Amino acid sequence: MKKIWQKDNTTNNDLVTKFTVGKDLDFDDRLAKYDVLGSIAHAKMLAEVGLIRLDEEQAIVAVLEEVLSEIEKETFEIDKTAEDIHSQIENILIEKLGETGKKIHTARSRNDQVLTDIKLYLIDEIREITELTDSFFQILKDKANLHKDVLLPGYTHLQVAMPSSFGLWFGAYAESLVDDLELLFATKNIINKNPLGSAAGYGSSFPIDRESTTYKLGFRTLNHNVVYAQMTRGKSEKLLANSLSVLAGTLGKFSYDVCLYLSQNFDFISFPKEFTTGSSIMPHKKNPDIFELVRARCNRIQALPNELVLVTNNLPSGYHRDLQLTKEILFPAIDSLKECLEILIYTLPNIEVKNNILDDEKYKYIFSVEKINEEVKNGKSFRDAYIQIGQEIDNSLFEYDYKELNHSHQGSLGNLCLDEIEYQFNKMRDKLLG
Amino acid sequence: MKKIWQKDNTTNNDLVTKFTVGKDLDFDDRLAKYDVLGSIAHAKMLAEVGLIRLDEEQAIVAVLEEVLSEIEKETFEIDKTAEDIHSQIENILIEKLGETGKKIHTARSRNDQVLTDIKLYLIDEIREITELTDSFFQILKDKANLHKDVLLPGYTHLQVAMPSSFGLWFGAYAESLVDDLELLFATKNIINKNPLGSAAGYGSSFPIDRESTTYKLGFRTLNHNVVYAQMTRGKSEKLLANSLSVLAGTLGKFSYDVCLYLSQNFDFISFPKEFTTGSSIMPHKKNPDIFELVRARCNRIQALPNELVLVTNNLPSGYHRDLQLTKEILFPAIDSLKECLEILIYTLPNIEVKNNILDDEKYKYIFSVEKINEEVKNGKSFRDAYIQIGQEIDNSLFEYDYKELNHSHQGSLGNLCLDEIEYQFNKMRDKLLG
Amino acid sequence: MKKIWQKDNTTNNDLVTKFTVGKDLDFDDRLAKYDVLGSIAHAKMLAEVGLIRLDEEQAIVAVLEEVLSEIEKETFEIDKTAEDIHSQIENILIEKLGETGKKIHTARSRNDQVLTDIKLYLIDEIREITELTDSFFQILKDKANLHKDVLLPGYTHLQVAMPSSFGLWFGAYAESLVDDLELLFATKNIINKNPLGSAAGYGSSFPIDRESTTYKLGFRTLNHNVVYAQMTRGKSEKLLANSLSVLAGTLGKFSYDVCLYLSQNFDFISFPKEFTTGSSIMPHKKNPDIFELVRARCNRIQALPNELVLVTNNLPSGYHRDLQLTKEILFPAIDSLKECLEILIYTLPNIEVKNNILDDEKYKYIFSVEKINEEVKNGKSFRDAYIQIGQEIDNSLFEYDYKELNHSHQGSLGNLCLDEIEYQFNKMRDKLLG
Amino acid sequence: MKKIWQKDNTTNNDLVTKFTVGKDLDFDDRLAKYDVLGSIAHAKMLAEVGLIRLDEEQAIVAVLEEVLSEIEKETFEIDKTAEDIHSQIENILIEKLGETGKKIHTARSRNDQVLTDIKLYLIDEIREITELTDSFFQILKDKANLHKDVLLPGYTHLQVAMPSSFGLWFGAYAESLVDDLELLFATKNIINKNPLGSAAGYGSSFPIDRESTTYKLGFRTLNHNVVYAQMTRGKSEKLLANSLSVLAGTLGKFSYDVCLYLSQNFDFISFPKEFTTGSSIMPHKKNPDIFELVRARCNRIQALPNELVLVTNNLPSGYHRDLQLTKEILFPAIDSLKECLEILIYTLPNIEVKNNILDDEKYKYIFSVEKINEEVKNGKSFRDAYIQIGQEIDNSLFEYDYKELNHSHQGSLGNLCLDEIEYQFNKMRDKLLG
Repeated sequence: MKKIWQKDNTTNNDLVTKFTVGKDLDFDDRLAKYDVLGSIAHAKMLAEVGLIRLDEEQAIVAVLEEVLSEIEKETFEIDKTAEDIHSQIENILIEKLGETGKKIHTARSRNDQVLTDIKLYLIDEIREITELTDSFFQILKDKANLHKDVLLPGYTHLQVAMPSSFGLWFGAYAESLVDDLELLFATKNIINKNPLGSAAGYGSSFPIDRESTTYKLGFRTLNHNVVYAQMTRGKSEKLLANSLSVLAGTLGKFSYDVCLYLSQNFDFISFPKEFTTGSSIMPHKKNPDIFELVRARCNRIQALPNELVLVTNNLPSGYHRDLQLTKEILFPAIDSLKECLEILIYTLPNIEVKNNILDDEKYKYIFSVEKINEEVKNGKSFRDAYIQIGQEIDNSLFEYDYKELNHSHQGSLGNLCLDEIEYQFNKMRDKLLG
Repeated sequence: MKKIWQKDNTTNNDLVTKFTVGKDLDFDDRLAKYDVLGSIAHAKMLAEVGLIRLDEEQAIVAVLEEVLSEIEKETFEIDKTAEDIHSQIENILIEKLGETGKKIHTARSRNDQVLTDIKLYLIDEIREITELTDSFFQILKDKANLHKDVLLPGYTHLQVAMPSSFGLWFGAYAESLVDDLELLFATKNIINKNPLGSAAGYGSSFPIDRESTTYKLGFRTLNHNVVYAQMTRGKSEKLLANSLSVLAGTLGKFSYDVCLYLSQNFDFISFPKEFTTGSSIMPHKKNPDIFELVRARCNRIQALPNELVLVTNNLPSGYHRDLQLTKEILFPAIDSLKECLEILIYTLPNIEVKNNILDDEKYKYIFSVEKINEEVKNGKSFRDAYIQIGQEIDNSLFEYDYKELNHSHQGSLGNLCLDEIEYQFNKMRDKLLG
Repeated sequence: MKKIWQKDNTTNNDLVTKFTVGKDLDFDDRLAKYDVLGSIAHAKMLAEVGLIRLDEEQAIVAVLEEVLSEIEKETFEIDKTAEDIHSQIENILIEKLGETGKKIHTARSRNDQVLTDIKLYLIDEIREITELTDSFFQILKDKANLHKDVLLPGYTHLQVAMPSSFGLWFGAYAESLVDDLELLFATKNIINKNPLGSAAGYGSSFPIDRESTTYKLGFRTLNHNVVYAQMTRGKSEKLLANSLSVLAGTLGKFSYDVCLYLSQNFDFISFPKEFTTGSSIMPHKKNPDIFELVRARCNRIQALPNELVLVTNNLPSGYHRDLQLTKEILFPAIDSLKECLEILIYTLPNIEVKNNILDDEKYKYIFSVEKINEEVKNGKSFRDAYIQIGQEIDNSLFEYDYKELNHSHQGSLGNLCLDEIEYQFNKMRDKLLG
Repeated sequence: MKKIWQKDNTTNNDLVTKFTVGKDLDFDDRLAKYDVLGSIAHAKMLAEVGLIRLDEEQAIVAVLEEVLSEIEKETFEIDKTAEDIHSQIENILIEKLGETGKKIHTARSRNDQVLTDIKLYLIDEIREITELTDSFFQILKDKANLHKDVLLPGYTHLQVAMPSSFGLWFGAYAESLVDDLELLFATKNIINKNPLGSAAGYGSSFPIDRESTTYKLGFRTLNHNVVYAQMTRGKSEKLLANSLSVLAGTLGKFSYDVCLYLSQNFDFISFPKEFTTGSSIMPHKKNPDIFELVRARCNRIQALPNELVLVTNNLPSGYHRDLQLTKEILFPAIDSLKECLEILIYTLPNIEVKNNILDDEKYKYIFSVEKINEEVKNGKSFRDAYIQIGQEIDNSLFEYDYKELNHSHQGSLGNLCLDEIEYQFNKMRDKLLG
């Protein structure tokens, strides 16, 4: 198909087209909706400022709403011979409306179109990720509450250290999500600025009204400077990648713990057989593949910001075609993170925790600090009590009955502060969804 | 020197000590102040809840304030034989106060101490970076305003594209800093939570009051869950590294532009000779080393988040000694970024911009869109006008007199919106400094 | 479909299956051939050592050769309900041969199967990449020779520095490929070791003959230690990713130069219109999208080793499901690099170089070192001549007639050493293809 | 101090000097020796081709040999007021020899000087790393041999899988070093090419003899093309960083295993108390800080290649000052890796391995494949035997007496192939040291 920028009828070079289009068409379906929404806002604004007539606007918007309805009914098809979704939609308008359709591209460029599409798309994905994170948070919080009295060994240096609990363990990851959402909210705010009207990154001589499209598209404000608006391509993607990588860090770390705790050498938790996988050679295996794959995918997501930096870095200001690749880097990672959240939400409710773990002899010294603390409460200085209990241990004289465990300060195993954590989570979640 | 955890007098192994202490002592000087502040708050809280007596608290605080005063007068010296700054300060208390000094470590661990120190330190560095960014912003904004009518070619694909201006160019980087500060503010908020009292990551059985130390140290709230509090080690550093890398992205991109525009092939700007460097072999060279090094350092800073992820990733929950390395990774990068801002603040006011750049024949087609737009204003559809002007160009018939240039929409070269951008910048800056 | 590791008929959990299979089936088609080759070698060896009978071996090999022939005729279809290609092929054997088919999995595991498949596959890809690199080398060398007398400005710090030539420029990238192949050859040698027989990473109690399969499969030697054999999963992929990233570094740098030299501000080269792309808004644009996309893809490939490290790092020895992801990370990158080489091979022969570039006044000082050198030849010390010419430049007295340019030493613009470079390239290429 | 490129006596700007010199002087001491060696070779060659007189050469070489002797006696001091080591040595020659000294910089630039220095330095470091790797290999091999009959559980997915042994475990890491050295050897070969004479990256009009300096400096060949010679700056560092990161991957993985096996939940190994570290709060702790820090440092080293790519990427051909940073990125990492090898060489001989580990009930199913194999040897097909034993396990009927364990194939626990591995290691080591 003829390109929108072609001025004559020379044939395109297929190899060049194939290479330059690359994987773009695989991602255009998710941008189609936003491209139409952006075009509707643009057409209305063009009429407001007198660049097109009211009847032209109405004709254009009518066609675009038809396309939108097809997209929503999933009957719209990406034209694999079009250069991209932007060209396809412009072509539909020209086919249906002739001269009027040829006016839609007034005062814009594909550069600000795709920028707008991507931002609107990312904002919607942020909403979905927030909702999934909310579901995951609820499970963690509920598990923390349900198992708040079941003790676990706490480790430092992977050495048995001090008493912990399932309440602390689940609760820690719940609180981690509070911070992850705070970062996501800042990222959303930065992305949520209108680039439309920046055209090819240098604006135009048309008297367009960028505040009007900002309002119509629901952006909180605009990227004012048109050169900066263009710079947000790549930067928006990097910012979201940063945020996702921090959230992925939480999920990946949790999954690492799960894999470790499922090992026979820890044996703190288990899952029903249907959540595990077998071996082609060892009939006794029940492998935690789900959690290994969540971990691995989350680690891949943590490589994302660096990948985007490498592709977009050390380029002078102004658009470069290199930026096309941000889509194929970021978009599948968004899908992957959502799938990780979904499988965790599906699987985690089925976790089974073991009781009486600390009865095992190997966890005996976990109570050494408890015993020091008793000495301190009886008047010894901490450092002297430390030396005394240390010598008891070295001389194999240490004994402790942990039934009396009593931790009461904020955030400790006897006082999980789940309500405060939930309050903070909900505040961030509501900001993100509001 | 005997370690605080040693229970007997066996000699330490020097090689092991040297390897495990590593570069820590190089960074302890910047943490000393915060360690003392944390210890003062801790001692006061211990007295409040009855774990030490009031006279003990007063004795401890008196010694600590003396140390603090030495640190502020820069007469305090890091003891190279101590294991770390935390041990050194505990040792000073024991030396001066005997039994009373041995009580300071009640209900805390070096794990929550260093966490607290690092967070307080990072918050102070965020303040300094904000102030430097403010100074750099002012220069960019002033330059944008001063040169707002000096035109530049705008590029896409490094090809001459459309008219731009020095106003747009400087203004774009000014606006970039608005977004960079918004991310920094979220990062500060996440870091600004009190981990003190989480001890070795599992809390303690002492009835401490973590809200009291939160208030005394000026944290906005606390990391509630003690296991999560420990997880913020590494995570805080990564979050700040992310923020710094985004700010570094802005500085690096600006520096890339400067290096390009200084090339004889662009020749858009110049600097007085004292801001350039010569060659050992070519007597005519005036090289832009400052900007190349800002770019390179900023690129190194952009590698920072990945480096921190690699060191801290795939470790199960609970402290690991690996985390010690976050200091030597992050702290020098903070210094380096501040130096980049300082040298830019020092150098940029001296930039000289060239006039009449667009007179050069090679920029002629930069006005092709202007001419299309005129046709559109005269009633042609955009797409038809595009084809017409394209054919003029192909047939070497294109001429345009750019004296008439008139861009008026928000953020365009005739309407830079510097006031709006400054308003948004100041709002973020004030939040960060407030 | 029932999994090969299932011991009863309980239904599989579809969501779990979908998540754990992930994108594996997208990559199994390229492993199918190698899986069959590995199985043939394995079956023959099992018969040699008496673990299966000769007639069993013949029956198994006959079925496998049929499958191989289908794969080669591209009529073989991946069974989307199978867990993976290994299970599918085992299932085919069982379907066709009953009890005999059930014997193929004796003394092996899917772990060593997939390791073997991947290594054989990577070795074939290394061959293809070598051949493409060879074609690209020839073009660079020919262009260097063709344009050896056309001068270019050489830059340092992006500042006009000393005279260079198209011969030097093309020749530099040709020589870069010599080093890139040397690294690729070492990588191939390390990968080219047989892991088959390591089973799940701990070998087996069967008296198998691993040297026999090594010989049959054409590996140069074996990964002896079975635990290490398993460790080469992930490591092989990283090593190849390292090699590809170095080659990508060469292609990306070349593409950066091309984009710069195509800019109107350099205007050193051009391409026929069909190798460039237009703009939706600016009718004069002929954008170098091909080279921008080669650069961007090559930068993405340079992110590859880090991505693999992040996914495979900080895992204790022994297989983890995380390793599954190395396929979806590395395999598409191999395709992408080959496509970059192909498009360069297709495009580069059409490059047009400009003559008389150095006539432009802005390149005048490029000859300052020439003039110093003349003074030196006339007896002045270098450092004094440097100062004298520097002062001439500062006082606008510098003049030089570059017609007399005469560089003769090895590798200089008058002595490109293309034969030596070609000799070295061919030596490495022949080792790789041999 | 006046810069060698200064043509008048204007004062330098201190802030600019401080920023541009950066950390260079911290690394110049290790380059000093190579700078002198390069200058000696250069001076001799200049005399050979008649660019300086024989008496001049002798005077220059005499001074340089004096400097070299001071460097070797460690009495040479870096002049902190010099711009860099190259300038300092040129200044010494001028001070001592007047006009003759001013001739040393004929036909070279600091660009090819520092390139030569860095390559010679890296080659020496490769030698040292090889020697340390050799020592570490010997310990691993000896430990593998010593403990070849002590069994360990082998894990897949961190789940108990099949029997392994300390022989296999130590031997695996020994064999890993074979591959790591093979990569290091290729890297050395690529680095080991002479860039001297490429001057500022464009050669010169002097009739120098680059083969002569190649021979004198012991390079195996030369980087022919002068533009490519300059491109090896950054590329050499990246190649070595790649190699070091692969070696670091081996050390880091080993250290991860050690930390895990030292956990009370595994308890496979132990170290004498003096190789462990205590806690400030828990008197029972013996933490494996050495291995955690080796792991963390090695992970940092694995971030190195990416850091170098980020700093050097997307720069057009020709020198940029950005390249200065490769020294401060790579050189400390070389030190750190050597320290990791040293501490492992010092610590590992003291490892104590536990016996009878497999007696623990939790490892019972590790023998499931052994039992399947017995059934197979008795005539059952593998897949049927797999199902039968799987059902025994599910019905809690599985029993196995592992005293009969008998693995005999190459690389299995009964046949470690340590001699073959040592042969391959020594071959690579000898190539590297030869």
